[in-house]
Formats: sequence, structure tokens, C-alpha cells
Amino acid sequence: MADKITPRSADYSQWYIDIVLGAKLADYSPVKGCMVIRPRGYAIWERIQAEMDRRFKETGHQNCYFPMLIPMSFLKREAEHVEGFAPELAVVTIGGGEELEEPLVIRPTSETIIWSKYKDWIHSYRDLPLLYNQWCSVLRWEKRTRLFLRTAEFLWQEGHTAHETEKEAVEETMKMLGVYKEVVERHLCLPVIAGRKSDAEKFAGAVATYCIEAMMQDKKALQAGTSHFLGQNFGKAFDVQFQTRDGKLDFAWATSWGTSTRLIGAVIMTHSDDKGLVLPPTLAPEQAVIVPIYKTDTKAAVMAFCEKLLAELKGAGVRAILDDSDKSPGWKFAEHEMNGVPLRIEIGPRDMEAGKAMVARRDTGEKAAYEVDSLPAKALELLDAIQKNLYDRALAFRMENTKSVASREELLAFYGKDSGEDAGTAAATGGFAEGLWCGSGECEARFKTETKVTIRCLPLDKQEGISGTCCLCGKSAKHAVVFARNY
Amino acid sequence: MADKITPRSADYSQWYIDIVLGAKLADYSPVKGCMVIRPRGYAIWERIQAEMDRRFKETGHQNCYFPMLIPMSFLKREAEHVEGFAPELAVVTIGGGEELEEPLVIRPTSETIIWSKYKDWIHSYRDLPLLYNQWCSVLRWEKRTRLFLRTAEFLWQEGHTAHETEKEAVEETMKMLGVYKEVVERHLCLPVIAGRKSDAEKFAGAVATYCIEAMMQDKKALQAGTSHFLGQNFGKAFDVQFQTRDGKLDFAWATSWGTSTRLIGAVIMTHSDDKGLVLPPTLAPEQAVIVPIYKTDTKAAVMAFCEKLLAELKGAGVRAILDDSDKSPGWKFAEHEMNGVPLRIEIGPRDMEAGKAMVARRDTGEKAAYEVDSLPAKALELLDAIQKNLYDRALAFRMENTKSVASREELLAFYGKDSGEDAGTAAATGGFAEGLWCGSGECEARFKTETKVTIRCLPLDKQEGISGTCCLCGKSAKHAVVFARNY
Repeated sequence: MADKITPRSADYSQWYIDIVLGAKLADYSPVKGCMVIRPRGYAIWERIQAEMDRRFKETGHQNCYFPMLIPMSFLKREAEHVEGFAPELAVVTIGGGEELEEPLVIRPTSETIIWSKYKDWIHSYRDLPLLYNQWCSVLRWEKRTRLFLRTAEFLWQEGHTAHETEKEAVEETMKMLGVYKEVVERHLCLPVIAGRKSDAEKFAGAVATYCIEAMMQDKKALQAGTSHFLGQNFGKAFDVQFQTRDGKLDFAWATSWGTSTRLIGAVIMTHSDDKGLVLPPTLAPEQAVIVPIYKTDTKAAVMAFCEKLLAELKGAGVRAILDDSDKSPGWKFAEHEMNGVPLRIEIGPRDMEAGKAMVARRDTGEKAAYEVDSLPAKALELLDAIQKNLYDRALAFRMENTKSVASREELLAFYGKDSGEDAGTAAATGGFAEGLWCGSGECEARFKTETKVTIRCLPLDKQEGISGTCCLCGKSAKHAVVFARNY
Repeated sequence: MADKITPRSADYSQWYIDIVLGAKLADYSPVKGCMVIRPRGYAIWERIQAEMDRRFKETGHQNCYFPMLIPMSFLKREAEHVEGFAPELAVVTIGGGEELEEPLVIRPTSETIIWSKYKDWIHSYRDLPLLYNQWCSVLRWEKRTRLFLRTAEFLWQEGHTAHETEKEAVEETMKMLGVYKEVVERHLCLPVIAGRKSDAEKFAGAVATYCIEAMMQDKKALQAGTSHFLGQNFGKAFDVQFQTRDGKLDFAWATSWGTSTRLIGAVIMTHSDDKGLVLPPTLAPEQAVIVPIYKTDTKAAVMAFCEKLLAELKGAGVRAILDDSDKSPGWKFAEHEMNGVPLRIEIGPRDMEAGKAMVARRDTGEKAAYEVDSLPAKALELLDAIQKNLYDRALAFRMENTKSVASREELLAFYGKDSGEDAGTAAATGGFAEGLWCGSGECEARFKTETKVTIRCLPLDKQEGISGTCCLCGKSAKHAVVFARNY
């Protein structure tokens, strides 16, 4: 805990890494590009999983598991798909001591292997829909990696559904985007913009990709989840035909959707501060820590008092711990701040006598004394307040750093002279720029090359009644878009 | 559902596959040796996971995640370990389009990569114990595979713990064996024998391997879980030294323990019959199915009655479904028998008028009429009875097929003339033979080569006061053992 955290203002990237390592969320591994998720990080993932999984099941989905290895030839069946993933593949060429006849790739995503089986399972409209999801790891060879945000192997869930009609598949795509938005906003406290990706940014093999985009404290965007309408692309590539209600043959319609351990990176980057991790109470492994303060002669009485309080907090449903280690109170304060425990409860002999305890909020640093008798109820109230504050604070930050732009000049001014640089501090200029776009891929690509600023999405709630000119080229505009630098 | 199931008496292996495919638990995959776990099979795995995971956490363990790729050189650090796993490895030689400098293997198990990190995290006795577990898939290249029982890739959990003393590590090894035994006996209804493996059968790199062994309906043994005391083997191989309480340096002591999706195969093979799957109620995705029986004029009334009952069953905590499909009642009966739903509730117009329902137990086939008002309570009672019956029935079967043997002649007679053959029917001779053994690996190996019958384990509760002669070679005996053919 004695490790210093680099301040955000000095080096945002280093600050992030200091927190991931310092709070023991993840660590580097001896395998290049791969990370170790440590118990404190994995516990956050388990809570995200539980929230997601519950909603997947409530919306009729079932979990399953497909092999991690995929024949190379499968990827080639969908032209855009293989083009998108070929450069990132890890290839198994030897199995059981022998050279394989056909190389196998470790799944970068599972559309191909899953649709190869859907062909066996889908014959009639009666077999549809198939609403499947799997929790697993995937591997995409990466040169530049960053813990949680971009690693070769990462954990995720991937939903893969097959439908009778285009309408149903589109509805499914939007429904799952909605599920993601709800979990990410309510439980991760990340306000997000739901939108459609431009064609240049869509998933390799999709007809349309929808996403939720969050703003980090350095004002960059992070894609927090994607939901793809795949049309009949994989149905055709894997010849998945079924008998329709009116006795004809048609190819099945598809969706896929995913979220990953990257979300943990987004949580860290959005809420934390220069003292360490800040976590939404719903995700925190420990929601409250009791720190006893005593001298030798008062230890027994203080500890007994604290243990009684611990039991009461747990009884009220608070995930509480009592730090009875032999470290100093100051050391403990710093350690639990680093770890992101939302509430710290300090109890010494005088507090005990007065029947009070000092409670510190991790998000605001506010301290106040409360009657010990009312603490369990008060703790739950404070945890709710923290949950709400984290979301509100992040939303306010995004609003403050979002600007409407009408022209190329305004865009360049917003992103600053160094807009071509990968600015590494929270003080960087820019943020989210809202503007209009003509819809041309060339126009979009030119600006991206010049500035590294990209169209993050076409926000779903802003596409009606578009009129005006493209803020990049001045031609007639077709879409409202959000620009940002991104992770 | 119209698919016929091969009777056990005709071909036990084919019967097993017919059930796995017919009940849609798993399917073959286009990747040789790998399987697809379908939603009905995965739902069973989720229930096994939940029971295991809860107990891991109650005993102080934490989940984490380590990379699936391991540098080839790591495996070589522990001599026995690499010898054991080298023939089964899948090797990645290409990443991101380039030949790798050092080949990476897909984890066959994770001792090496985990202990390479433990070196970074363990410096003092204060850092111990580390009680970690991960849920993941592993890959061991297999030539002869069978769904769930033996596949190249399979899902499992692997616990990896590090301790200050030998005593603590041994205690941990035995504690986790106890956790496995409890889950497997109580929730999977598989009676098991807990024992130690002979040196020939122990894990590659372990000092001692402990196991739980179950008997399948064809009288073969199936290893349902293992817990290894690894001594300081991996501590030394990865140079994990720590400062002891008295200021010296010592290598950390290790355990590892695992259970896998193979358990699903054991559940199927132990409880099912010629009509299909039989599942312990605690594992069944659906515990009761209501089958309405009506003609056109009675449909509305019967369905309304059934829906009310469905709500009451769910309210009582029974995982119940109502089969309102347009298939015939007979077809539905067969389908839910194939799927292993523990209770079938039939309701027609006359039952409705009498306020009764016919309830059929999947395990015994018994049918009886019950008052509908009492059904939720009765269903819970019947589910408990089925859970108990499955265990008792499996235990009785094992007892009937266990024999004490004193000599080689008795052993050979027990396993029959064809003891060298991999007998494929439930009518095969043999079972578990209990005898004494001299402890010689040569003596053990000779008998295995001749008969394919192996020492499954040295039962923990039978090692006191051994006196007599080895039933294989006639020399002085040291251990009580159980022989069997095995999966």
C-alpha cells in the first residue's frame, strides 16, 4: 500500500495502471499480452456476470458452451469476418505431438463454430428462435495491451441468436443493447450513449452494429458493449435454411452481442481518484470496513464492540468486514481507500462510550458521526447515495465535456492543436463533440487519419428531423453523430 | 424424441450416447475431440458449479483467472509434470500472423503458470495461505473420446493453494476431497469411495493424489474428483520461497484439486434407464412438468386449471413447467421421460372435476393420484424422496457388485474369462473387488497389463490394522485396495 499512485493530472495512463496493480485487481502475466485477473478483480467480474446473466435468463436466453478451437476454414466462409479477424489469430498447428492437417484457431469470437452447429439444429420455423449465450474467454493477438482494456485473452459473454424473421432479429439486437445499457448504468454507474456504429466501425460480418459508449475521466470514449444485427450473413455462409410458415425455404436471421472484462477497466477509469479505486457499492466485494482504534488497554473492549457492530451490519445485508490486522489505523485507511471500499467506519474508545462511530464516504471523502444503533440502516442509505452520486457525477462530467459543433474548424478547436497526439492526461482538450455527418465513409476516414478523432456512434435518440450540413465536409447531412478520441 | 434408445443390456456405450444426444445435453462438434454442451446439459453444469462454488467460498477460497496459454518451457520445470502432459498438448506456434519465438501450449492444467505468479506474490508467511480457484476450460489432446467422459477440451474448476507448512497443505487436500464427496453424494446422488491413488495412478507432479470413485451401471469405476498434495514440488520448480515465522527461508507447500463436466457423464450413467435420462431433482432444470389432457371443448378449462397449479408449484419453490405444445400427451410423456424431468403431473377434465391429479415419478415409474390442493407440498416431498432413492439405489447397486477377494484366482474369476476385454454391456462380470496389496508398482502393473483391471484407490477408511497377503502376488500386504475396470 506504500506504493504511490501517480496523479491523474501527471499521467492518466500510469495512474490507471497504478490503481489496477495497487488494488490488486489484475497483474501482468509471463505470457505476452495476457493478464492475470486477481481475486479482487475477479470478484467484480462475478458481480457483473450475475447481473447480466440474470437478465439474459429473464429475457429467455440459455447458456451453453462451444469449443474454443475453430477450423481455420470456417472463418473464411464469411468474407468480411475473416478479413476482420485474420491479423489477430492465435493458431494451433500441433496437437498430441503431431502436425495438424488443418490448423485450428483459438476463438476470437464464435459466430462461425456456432452457426456450423445451428445448421444441424435448425430445420423448421418451429426450431426458432435459438437464444443462446456463452461465458468464456476469447483471444485476439494484440501488440499494444493495457490491463483489462486491451489484452490478447479476455473474458466475456457472447450471445448468438437465430430467428425466423428480420424483424425479430432486429428487435433482439435492440433488446440486448437495452439490457447492457441498464446493467452498465444501474450497476456500474456508467452513463452511456446508445447508438449505431458507422459502417467503417461495425463488426466484421454484421449488417449493423449497435453500441453503448461511455466517457472516461480523460474525456476519451470507451465502447462498453456491442450488439450486432448480422442479417442472413452467417445463415448463408453456413447454409442454415429452414422451412418457413408458408412452406418455403429461407436462411435464418442472426444477432450476436457481447460485453467483456473491459467493463472493469471502464469502472476503474470513470470513478477512481488519486487515492485509489472507487467502486459502485453494488460491485464492491466489501461495502464497509470497520477500523478499530485502540491502545493496549482498550483493545478488548473496542474489538468486542466492533464485532457486535459487524454482525449487525451483516445482518442488515451490508457486505462488511472488520480489519483486525496489526497495521496502524492510518495504514488501514490508505489501504481500504486504495481498494475502493465505499464506507469506512472508525471506532475508538471515546466513540464507543458515546455510542457513536465516524463514517467516511469513499466517493466524496465526507466524514460524519452517527449513532451506532442506527448504523446498519444508515450504511444502507449511504451506499445508495454513493451509487447515485457516482452515476450523477459521471453524467455531469460527460455533459460538461460535450459540445455541439457545426464545422471542421470548431471540431479542430475543440480537440486542440495536438489533436493528432494521443494525449495522455485528464487535462487533455476535447471530449464528446456532437455534430452532423453526411454519411460518407471517405469523409469519415479522412478526419480520422488526420486527427485520431472518430465517429463513436450515431445516437439512437437523435436521428429524427436531421437538417443541415456535414460538420466535416459541408455537404448535406444525413446523421447526427458523436465524435471522440477513444480506447 | 422418436429416436429409439439402445437398451443398456444390448450396448451400454451406445445407450449412453443415445441419452446424451436424445436429451440434448451435448453434441459432437466439427473440431475433432471437442464437444458442444447444449443448454440442457449446461444447465446441469451451472447447478453443479453453484453447489461447488458456494462451498469453496465458505471454506475461504477466492476465484481468479490465469491465462489459457502457457510457455512450453514452464511445463518442463517440473520433470514428472511435463512427462505426464507432453503427449496431450495442443501447441500454438503462430500469433498475429507471425511464428512465435517460444511455442505456447493451451493449458492442460494450470499449476505451472499459477506458480510462476505465486513467486511474485509470496514473500513472507504473512502472504500465506493463498486459497485460489478458477473456473475455465482445459485441453488435453485425446484420440478416443466420449461426450462428457473424455473430450479434448472440457470445463472444470481447478483449485491451487499455497501454504506455510506441510501439515496445512495436507489438511487442505483432505478438506477439499471432503467438499467434493459431499457435493457429489448429496447433489449428484453418487455414492463414492474416498481413497488415495497408488503411485502409478497419481497426478504428474503430486506427492499424493486423493480421489473419489463411483460405480457406473456397467460396474466400471469412474473417478469423480481428485485432490492433490503437491508437497514443495512446484514451490521448488518455480522458486517460491518465503520468510518463515522464525526468520528462515522455506519453499511454499502446495495443493491442487479439480472436478469437471465429466461429473455430468457420471450422473447420466449412474441414474438413467432405457427410457432416457434420470436426474437428481436438485440438478434437474425442470423438476415437474404438467401435461394437460383435453379435447377441443375442454381445452380452455383444463388449461386454466393447469396454469393455476403451475403458479402454485412455482410459489412453493418447485421448478415447474406446463407443456402447452400441440403434441399428443403420449409424445409429451416420452419426451419428458427422455429429458429426465423427475415428476410428471397429468391433468384431464375428470381429474379437474375430482380436484385430483395423477403424478408419475421418473425414477420408479410409480403413479398415484393426489388432491390438487396438496400438490405443491406433495411435489416437494416426492422430489426429496427421489433424491434419496437415487442415492440409495446407486449405493445398493455398488454393494451388490462389490466382492472381497483374497487371491489372484478369485480376482480373475470375479472379472470373468474376458477380463482382458473392454466389456461393453451392463451384464459384464465384475464390479469393485476389495483386497489387500503388497504396495509394489511392478505387481500392480503386471495385473493391469494382463486384465485391464486397475487399483482404483486405497480407501481412506480401511487402512488400519492391515494383516494378510497381497491378493496379486501373495507377499505380505501393506494396503487395502479396491480394484475395478474404469473409465
